Amino acid sequence: MKRSGRRPGNQDTRASILDAARRTFAEKGFDKASIRAIAAGAEVDPALVHHYFGTKEQLFLAAMNAPINPGELIPQALAGPREQAGERLVRLMLTVWDSPAGSAALAMFRSALSNEWTARLLREFVITQILRRAVGDLIDDPSEAPLRSSLVATQMAGVLVARYVLKIQPLAGADPEVIVAAVGPNVQRFLVDPMPEVFKQAAS
Amino acid sequence: MKRSGRRPGNQDTRASILDAARRTFAEKGFDKASIRAIAAGAEVDPALVHHYFGTKEQLFLAAMNAPINPGELIPQALAGPREQAGERLVRLMLTVWDSPAGSAALAMFRSALSNEWTARLLREFVITQILRRAVGDLIDDPSEAPLRSSLVATQMAGVLVARYVLKIQPLAGADPEVIVAAVGPNVQRFLVDPMPEVFKQAAS
Repeated sequence: MKRSGRRPGNQDTRASILDAARRTFAEKGFDKASIRAIAAGAEVDPALVHHYFGTKEQLFLAAMNAPINPGELIPQALAGPREQAGERLVRLMLTVWDSPAGSAALAMFRSALSNEWTARLLREFVITQILRRAVGDLIDDPSEAPLRSSLVATQMAGVLVARYVLKIQPLAGADPEVIVAAVGPNVQRFLVDPMPEVFKQAAS
Repeated sequence: MKRSGRRPGNQDTRASILDAARRTFAEKGFDKASIRAIAAGAEVDPALVHHYFGTKEQLFLAAMNAPINPGELIPQALAGPREQAGERLVRLMLTVWDSPAGSAALAMFRSALSNEWTARLLREFVITQILRRAVGDLIDDPSEAPLRSSLVATQMAGVLVARYVLKIQPLAGADPEVIVAAVGPNVQRFLVDPMPEVFKQAAS
């Protein structure tokens, strides 16, 4: 428990858990940071961490001030008819990034581009935890999920960089549905289309 | 001419031209920065700028400490059989970035991701000046060159971000030819393949 002189209110406890979470995620990465270690860092009981923030994923999103939960949105976008999964994923990304939440998402993405530990967290959390699993559920040969997910990540990150960071025209000002129509089939190919032999050897 | 007390050696003159070039490119962007303005900034004759550095493009590359000249390499990669243009472009990028010159290229790219004026220069120089022209030479309908180039830029920038900045595995450690085989056809589609109707309306 906190050693502060006065009895801490909820806000103090929440804040010290979030501080401890940021430190622990920074030190150990998403995978190895445990709720137990974060609770110890905040000098509270692990049950209280779960009580305030839910799962480790939800705590992570709160600690990163994430405006959305990709752990819900990405699997939702990939569920549904497999033939349009690529288009739905591109449309989801543009919907979030063109929305008011987009500026917070952009700040997080920029931070990952310049900061080693944010890069690691983004990598472990969005790619390894979420995208890779959702892609694994979609495809016939799950051994290809890591390589296919990292290829999907190239195209998604590339649209973010070109449209929102480098602001390359006419892409930066294009209607989202033009980008969905142009980029969706390429994401679809990375997701589920047959790949060259050299790719299959690397994936398995 | 320089007003320094001693007669300037070549190194001094070169350095002051490069300084003036960086300032002028930063203020005006690549398109509007003139050799005349840069020469005035360095207090030398414009002919001397040409003598030391050649074209504005070459001066820009020198000012940016660019390890390669994309203005030569990209058109070279896109020349040749049109069917493999996408693969050649991806292979060129990986060859440069996996080479010793890659770390300097990475530094420049990172700078463009965090710095507005480097972003503008990269955009104007690599995309507008070089890629857009080379794509225009490749395709049947040149009015589509701006949109196709910006789409190619998404896939190329995305591979750079995922492989070299975020280091997403297994892509980060993959053999270059696996990436060429996986990503090349997608770049090829952006370059020359027929596009959906909504794309054509946006491009024209």
